[in-house]
Amino acid sequence: MSIPKICKLRVGILGATGIVGQKFIVLLQNHPWFELVSVAASEESAGKTYEKAVAGRWKQQVDIPKNVARTKVSQCDPHAMQADFVFSGLDGAVAKDIERSFAESGIPVISNTKTYRMEEDVPLLIPEINPDHIRLIDIQRKRRQWSGFIVTNPNCVAIPLAMALKPIYDAVGIQKVSVVSMQAISGAGFPGVASIDIVDNLIPYIVGEEPKVETEPLKLLGKLAAGKVKFAAFPISAQCNRVAVQDGHFLNISFTTAKKTSVERLKKLIRDFRGEPQKLKLPSAPQNPLIYLDDDFRPQPRLDRDREGGMAITIGRLRECPVFGYKMAVLGHNTIRGAAGAAILNAELLYKKGYLVRSRFS
Amino acid sequence: MSIPKICKLRVGILGATGIVGQKFIVLLQNHPWFELVSVAASEESAGKTYEKAVAGRWKQQVDIPKNVARTKVSQCDPHAMQADFVFSGLDGAVAKDIERSFAESGIPVISNTKTYRMEEDVPLLIPEINPDHIRLIDIQRKRRQWSGFIVTNPNCVAIPLAMALKPIYDAVGIQKVSVVSMQAISGAGFPGVASIDIVDNLIPYIVGEEPKVETEPLKLLGKLAAGKVKFAAFPISAQCNRVAVQDGHFLNISFTTAKKTSVERLKKLIRDFRGEPQKLKLPSAPQNPLIYLDDDFRPQPRLDRDREGGMAITIGRLRECPVFGYKMAVLGHNTIRGAAGAAILNAELLYKKGYLVRSRFS
Amino acid sequence: MSIPKICKLRVGILGATGIVGQKFIVLLQNHPWFELVSVAASEESAGKTYEKAVAGRWKQQVDIPKNVARTKVSQCDPHAMQADFVFSGLDGAVAKDIERSFAESGIPVISNTKTYRMEEDVPLLIPEINPDHIRLIDIQRKRRQWSGFIVTNPNCVAIPLAMALKPIYDAVGIQKVSVVSMQAISGAGFPGVASIDIVDNLIPYIVGEEPKVETEPLKLLGKLAAGKVKFAAFPISAQCNRVAVQDGHFLNISFTTAKKTSVERLKKLIRDFRGEPQKLKLPSAPQNPLIYLDDDFRPQPRLDRDREGGMAITIGRLRECPVFGYKMAVLGHNTIRGAAGAAILNAELLYKKGYLVRSRFS
Amino acid sequence: MSIPKICKLRVGILGATGIVGQKFIVLLQNHPWFELVSVAASEESAGKTYEKAVAGRWKQQVDIPKNVARTKVSQCDPHAMQADFVFSGLDGAVAKDIERSFAESGIPVISNTKTYRMEEDVPLLIPEINPDHIRLIDIQRKRRQWSGFIVTNPNCVAIPLAMALKPIYDAVGIQKVSVVSMQAISGAGFPGVASIDIVDNLIPYIVGEEPKVETEPLKLLGKLAAGKVKFAAFPISAQCNRVAVQDGHFLNISFTTAKKTSVERLKKLIRDFRGEPQKLKLPSAPQNPLIYLDDDFRPQPRLDRDREGGMAITIGRLRECPVFGYKMAVLGHNTIRGAAGAAILNAELLYKKGYLVRSRFS
Repeated sequence: MSIPKICKLRVGILGATGIVGQKFIVLLQNHPWFELVSVAASEESAGKTYEKAVAGRWKQQVDIPKNVARTKVSQCDPHAMQADFVFSGLDGAVAKDIERSFAESGIPVISNTKTYRMEEDVPLLIPEINPDHIRLIDIQRKRRQWSGFIVTNPNCVAIPLAMALKPIYDAVGIQKVSVVSMQAISGAGFPGVASIDIVDNLIPYIVGEEPKVETEPLKLLGKLAAGKVKFAAFPISAQCNRVAVQDGHFLNISFTTAKKTSVERLKKLIRDFRGEPQKLKLPSAPQNPLIYLDDDFRPQPRLDRDREGGMAITIGRLRECPVFGYKMAVLGHNTIRGAAGAAILNAELLYKKGYLVRSRFS
Repeated sequence: MSIPKICKLRVGILGATGIVGQKFIVLLQNHPWFELVSVAASEESAGKTYEKAVAGRWKQQVDIPKNVARTKVSQCDPHAMQADFVFSGLDGAVAKDIERSFAESGIPVISNTKTYRMEEDVPLLIPEINPDHIRLIDIQRKRRQWSGFIVTNPNCVAIPLAMALKPIYDAVGIQKVSVVSMQAISGAGFPGVASIDIVDNLIPYIVGEEPKVETEPLKLLGKLAAGKVKFAAFPISAQCNRVAVQDGHFLNISFTTAKKTSVERLKKLIRDFRGEPQKLKLPSAPQNPLIYLDDDFRPQPRLDRDREGGMAITIGRLRECPVFGYKMAVLGHNTIRGAAGAAILNAELLYKKGYLVRSRFS
Repeated sequence: MSIPKICKLRVGILGATGIVGQKFIVLLQNHPWFELVSVAASEESAGKTYEKAVAGRWKQQVDIPKNVARTKVSQCDPHAMQADFVFSGLDGAVAKDIERSFAESGIPVISNTKTYRMEEDVPLLIPEINPDHIRLIDIQRKRRQWSGFIVTNPNCVAIPLAMALKPIYDAVGIQKVSVVSMQAISGAGFPGVASIDIVDNLIPYIVGEEPKVETEPLKLLGKLAAGKVKFAAFPISAQCNRVAVQDGHFLNISFTTAKKTSVERLKKLIRDFRGEPQKLKLPSAPQNPLIYLDDDFRPQPRLDRDREGGMAITIGRLRECPVFGYKMAVLGHNTIRGAAGAAILNAELLYKKGYLVRSRFS
Repeated sequence: MSIPKICKLRVGILGATGIVGQKFIVLLQNHPWFELVSVAASEESAGKTYEKAVAGRWKQQVDIPKNVARTKVSQCDPHAMQADFVFSGLDGAVAKDIERSFAESGIPVISNTKTYRMEEDVPLLIPEINPDHIRLIDIQRKRRQWSGFIVTNPNCVAIPLAMALKPIYDAVGIQKVSVVSMQAISGAGFPGVASIDIVDNLIPYIVGEEPKVETEPLKLLGKLAAGKVKFAAFPISAQCNRVAVQDGHFLNISFTTAKKTSVERLKKLIRDFRGEPQKLKLPSAPQNPLIYLDDDFRPQPRLDRDREGGMAITIGRLRECPVFGYKMAVLGHNTIRGAAGAAILNAELLYKKGYLVRSRFS
């Protein structure tokens, strides 16, 4: 790749050949602050050009950027990558050691992987929800003696769920939540879901998904106090299904609020919601993180997933519920707001807050 | 059509060209008790052969039975149809007057249409659940001065929902239920859902569906006493979605029981459940009305909808729920157990119980 | 809508609520030369705001532009529309009289409709193929005594077919062609193809399609001489099928060239092809009207239909054929390059050539 | 499994856990002549019960037959399987040595695998087309010194192609053929095609497919003379695509006949076609191997693939072609008539002709 422009941070991607890794590459094109300088993947890929390494597996609707196509793929080794920080789209299976080795070596890891999400001293971050949790980084570094650090973003269902609940939780509290997901096939990566399993069909189970959805939002909505996150204290029940949709995780959410409220007030809370990324005008921040649509037939994955570059969560059908207080339909783009875009927004916040800097070897 | 065999009841179909009407035709082929002798449809179709009337709209995976193909389509007029009773797959819009005119004229109507379902003196019937409700027929006839009568089957989501809940309700009671449906496109008839609305997509709203799902099961599970159905008294919340599946409505059901129980007990209740159709060995009755599958990845619409000729409800993933007591996945074939097959099973019960007889003009 | 900027031509759309009409609206947003000032549709729509008229039928992945949403829909009447010219996305059934009435009244019609395509004095135009055919306009006006005129673009399969053949035809001639299409569902409009006809299925017939594909390319590749188009003289066989793809018509084309050539030469002809729109740098012109991909697994509708804003035709798998000389796979976006985008490119050419001007009432 | 009934041949399946292997199991249930007694698969599966070995990969719409579920999976070793003959659904990669070892050991192999199809002394057999080719078995045995033998069935596209052409070839000859296929995803096995590659998409290339389609029909239609098959002598061009259909390979076939004929004559040839399996009333033989449908919208995969238990080929839209003489649409079920059902029909013919017998160790 070409020499990065003076003022941009140099970025690497771990797991660059997977579906999330590919999305990182697409979203980082022309990023104003970050310049992709290195891509790393498994040993079979290392040493090949990215184009060769990803041959037959590049599934984006745009071509591989030319400079990336010809870059040599590195091993996932902090000494092999001259990056100011890295994004990780690694498989959970291998992430533990690799991400730690980068953090130890002084290279911050902005990770989409589940491995460190629920560790006590690791921020699980959505900049609109809990930007103050980044203070865990200092604790993390001290405790682990790392010169770098790890920051994670949540699971692709936990993100739209937590975002839709955030303004409600803040204003009127939440007592309990039940969520049923209809998740896109891109969420399973490539090759992921076999076509004979999903054409004219759906699958009622996604391994390991429900526990994440039932716990991660509670950390996200938790309060940081005395160096610890005190989790939000309401139960979540998740039922996760796979459907024949390319992109866009769709949720039916039922919830009971702690205080009395009304459909109109809830819609207004959603429509008025803005967070730190909007205040800071982060490059990847949507103008409206939550979009409420009054049409009963919306949101729909195909029509709404790409709103605000895939970074907005779309909500509709908010109404009273005879069992819970309310119910609603929620949609988020799973590989953008639910994965690569989420991590990039995290990095943007961290950059603005001074946690990501140009390293000395530059 | 040929002259019916001596002992069979002569059957007509109202709304015979629609998707449910077509399914009646397919399922009544070779029926041991009923012989299809006349098909009726809208005025545009009347007078044509069935084959011509349905041209371009026959969507079954088998051909039109030859004798039906050449039958002339009647108008939906009791005087035009020499039937001992009729099945109705009419549109709700026109059913009210037509079904009444048959009942008045002495021709029983076994209806799949929503119009009369919630009328106080009309049985809403699933033979496995509330076979005793057929006694409402006597009240109905007396009150309305009808020589015939109307019996209805529930909505295509209410059926698998009520069936899955039935053994649980009887054994340990139910306090509340939340159901999210992923419904097949055949449920919307033909042309029904436009393909550009459902390929790579789902639709979060089905007009008029949720109120039916939230009320019909309560009548089904109600007790008949003093000539009235006392509805079951628990709230149901329904969220109904359309997905790109040909046949098979899939439900995620969360529920709280009245008494303490366990996952193992609930599975056993489901597996052991048998009803009147199984006792009476009705021709369309499945051996097991409820099938429990231990594989976490089941039920799936494509693999499980056709069990027991599409008349069994398949259940899986029954587990504890952090918000309700339990949750589970449930599947039923929407045009068989959820529509035409449901009505035929109703007719079989009524025949066995003496409510359907060969009329004098035979 | 707002007052158009001084220098832009004012544009109307006939048939503005259909799928092609919607695509016109999306593509004309921010057009540098044309400003959408009026939208017309059928009588039921006329008088409503566009938003209301199109309610439940807007199927684009972006919202209705705000100024269009609030515009009142006109009737398709030249006296009701203050436009310098109009685009027509009308149904063939009604186009004949309406389009003529506009041309008679002095308002040029840039039509996507089939009705006038094969009339002797009406240009059937693809700017990359036969820009000189616009001279037919003068003949048309004289003969028909019209102050306006009609220019048409071809059918959505004929466009990628003729474009893929153009450089080959010019360089080495063509003796015969066989094409099999797999066409997207958006090509049938809304509601168009019923979902139960296409999920887990395909349809081997599209009414009226094959004759267009077998004749239109011959007019496109024809030579204008002595005021008439002398059609290209080779036979085309078309077999047209509908498949479960949202957008993008895919073709398998077999062809025999008149002169000897080679796979390598043909690929080079395709890659080097540029036309008048590229020379004139028309705003909607793709840089490369034909893109050749060496990957055997391409083109694919989902991955390649949006290249160059949906205006490029993508070609792959060009190889020798044991029956014809060669065969190849070709893809074009059916509602952009194959419909609305095609008409807009035609208008851009006509504007540059002085056939579209600001009318006196401005 | 239970002890086979006296008079049935004992059958084994090689590659029993794959999609074709599964279909063998389903189709052999209740077979009047053959009794499944052993199932073999790769080393990872060997030793497990079939149920365990196939866990998560059983994709049939019926359950695993109970006796098969509990059978221990063998290795693909002739000494480990007490079978009178075996069906092979092995991967091409491993079939060569394994199938030979069975043939050497005296166990006939009825194979669906490509490996031996084009060997000079191996019958490539469709009983309706070239039943006399089974005489190659004697030559094969003599030349190779095998006590068993190998008989193969063709590729899943070559079968419907050759069958549709057979009556035409016999009556009026064929000069050339061009075929474009739209192939079902089940043809790629499990996991096979990734869902993100096929939802809202199609794939224009199937590795290794076109050469088979271009050659196998010529051996099938060839004449056996002097111990050799003299191939039919016309060129075939194939273009093979994958589409989002579960089952059923659909073909657009264009062809030129050697002698003059007519659409009506060709339709009659198709409708009147019967072969040896129909004469012999083989258990799996369809009554009509070729079914002609006059409806222009047929055949369609979902509606027509299961005709005659998936063993009939359905044909429609036969019409004149401006480039070839004629063109038509053809459909065959790819895993039944195109794979497992084809092999079973071959075995039935061989049994009737005395090539499959109860072996001495019984």
